[in-house]
Amino acid sequence: MYKLVLMRHGESTWNLANRFTGWVDVDLTDKGIAEAKQAGQLLKAAGLTFDLAYTSVLKRAIRTLWGTLDEMDLMWLPVKHDWRLNERHYGALQGLNKAETAAQYGDDQVKIWRRSYDTPPPELDANDPRTSYDDPRYAHLERQQIPLTECLKDTVDRVTPAWNDSIAPAIKSGKRVIISAHGNSLRALIKMLDNISDTDIVGLNIPNGQPLVYELDANLKPIKSYYLGNQTAIASAMSAVANQGESKA
Amino acid sequence: MYKLVLMRHGESTWNLANRFTGWVDVDLTDKGIAEAKQAGQLLKAAGLTFDLAYTSVLKRAIRTLWGTLDEMDLMWLPVKHDWRLNERHYGALQGLNKAETAAQYGDDQVKIWRRSYDTPPPELDANDPRTSYDDPRYAHLERQQIPLTECLKDTVDRVTPAWNDSIAPAIKSGKRVIISAHGNSLRALIKMLDNISDTDIVGLNIPNGQPLVYELDANLKPIKSYYLGNQTAIASAMSAVANQGESKA
Repeated sequence: MYKLVLMRHGESTWNLANRFTGWVDVDLTDKGIAEAKQAGQLLKAAGLTFDLAYTSVLKRAIRTLWGTLDEMDLMWLPVKHDWRLNERHYGALQGLNKAETAAQYGDDQVKIWRRSYDTPPPELDANDPRTSYDDPRYAHLERQQIPLTECLKDTVDRVTPAWNDSIAPAIKSGKRVIISAHGNSLRALIKMLDNISDTDIVGLNIPNGQPLVYELDANLKPIKSYYLGNQTAIASAMSAVANQGESKA
Repeated sequence: MYKLVLMRHGESTWNLANRFTGWVDVDLTDKGIAEAKQAGQLLKAAGLTFDLAYTSVLKRAIRTLWGTLDEMDLMWLPVKHDWRLNERHYGALQGLNKAETAAQYGDDQVKIWRRSYDTPPPELDANDPRTSYDDPRYAHLERQQIPLTECLKDTVDRVTPAWNDSIAPAIKSGKRVIISAHGNSLRALIKMLDNISDTDIVGLNIPNGQPLVYELDANLKPIKSYYLGNQTAIASAMSAVANQGESKA
């Protein structure tokens, strides 16, 4: 039996400002840093430890991992930074305030962009300064691998090979793995692990900075999964995520 | 032509307390964290950037690297944590105050342990709780690879394969490399690079938290090397290192 821990980054400055973030490299708030440390304390108290960590190449996930590993006295742990674990690319909505976008396009359109499985938001223009084409962290990629927008299905399609080629073999080799990532890249992983339908996965809300433990069988099929920590606080954090993007919020 | 940056960790709590540290995993002081950030600013101002970072598995080097990469907006950089870049193991002296040790054994004996190339300090007893045998970061090593004491020659002997097998090939493949490490593991690298004699290397003092740039030719032979930053401050920091371990200090 294997254990795998998934963790969404702590609160970011744009979670707080209620902006569509996607691939924009915003940092954690002080609360987000505190959440990362608390996650480390919870993991330590649960007797968990790790041999290998994965994270996206976005600093809100990396700093969350740093805070957690620091708290666990595991700063020396090998870390793989994998761009395929990045947040879903939010296209032309990146940087816009969610409530303003909802007021402009209507709650229904925004809900479609946020919660449809296969409808992407409008894509960035290839000449838009917000593209990631000149960012050195993606310099090793072909241009067509760098998205201009993504629906959740697109995110699933890039997260899946990261799981198949890298993460799953590491777990099967006996390495205890923690993954620090994002709401939608974690949805992609959870969809695969729990075999969740396209319709249901869009309604799954993952709270910031809460370690989610999966116990997996020899074929990496989940036996059970549970959040560490105060379950009332987790339910409240999940509901807060669900309410983002409402213009009345 | 290649560029390589070497950096000794910022001030640690035991640099401040003037204790023999070796493989003990002490943290940075606030000054040490500030030095790491300043190093990042100096590197950025010098127009340097990196594709790959190396560090030891000790947190004072890792946190220095974190501070530097954070300041350079390179938190996503691939990092190799290599135990072979650890500080020289200080044997039974680990944890002892340098001035007290000098007062007990005499300045001359301490100077031999600190500054002889091939005389190690008394070794730790294999049953001493200070050994690294049960530390998970060394769990992949054979027991005989885990030192109980080291002279500088021993440190050179373990750093050399890290250079030959991993760092030098990475540089030759075109990767711009930064190494965050320790006074003696950096002496080992500098001895190799600059072909410094056994006698002279022990007199070389490397200041905390100051980026040292090497420009290397196609065979990785140094063309020139220089510290970034305020040269007066660097000279003063080098002289402070030289005076550690004096009982009169």
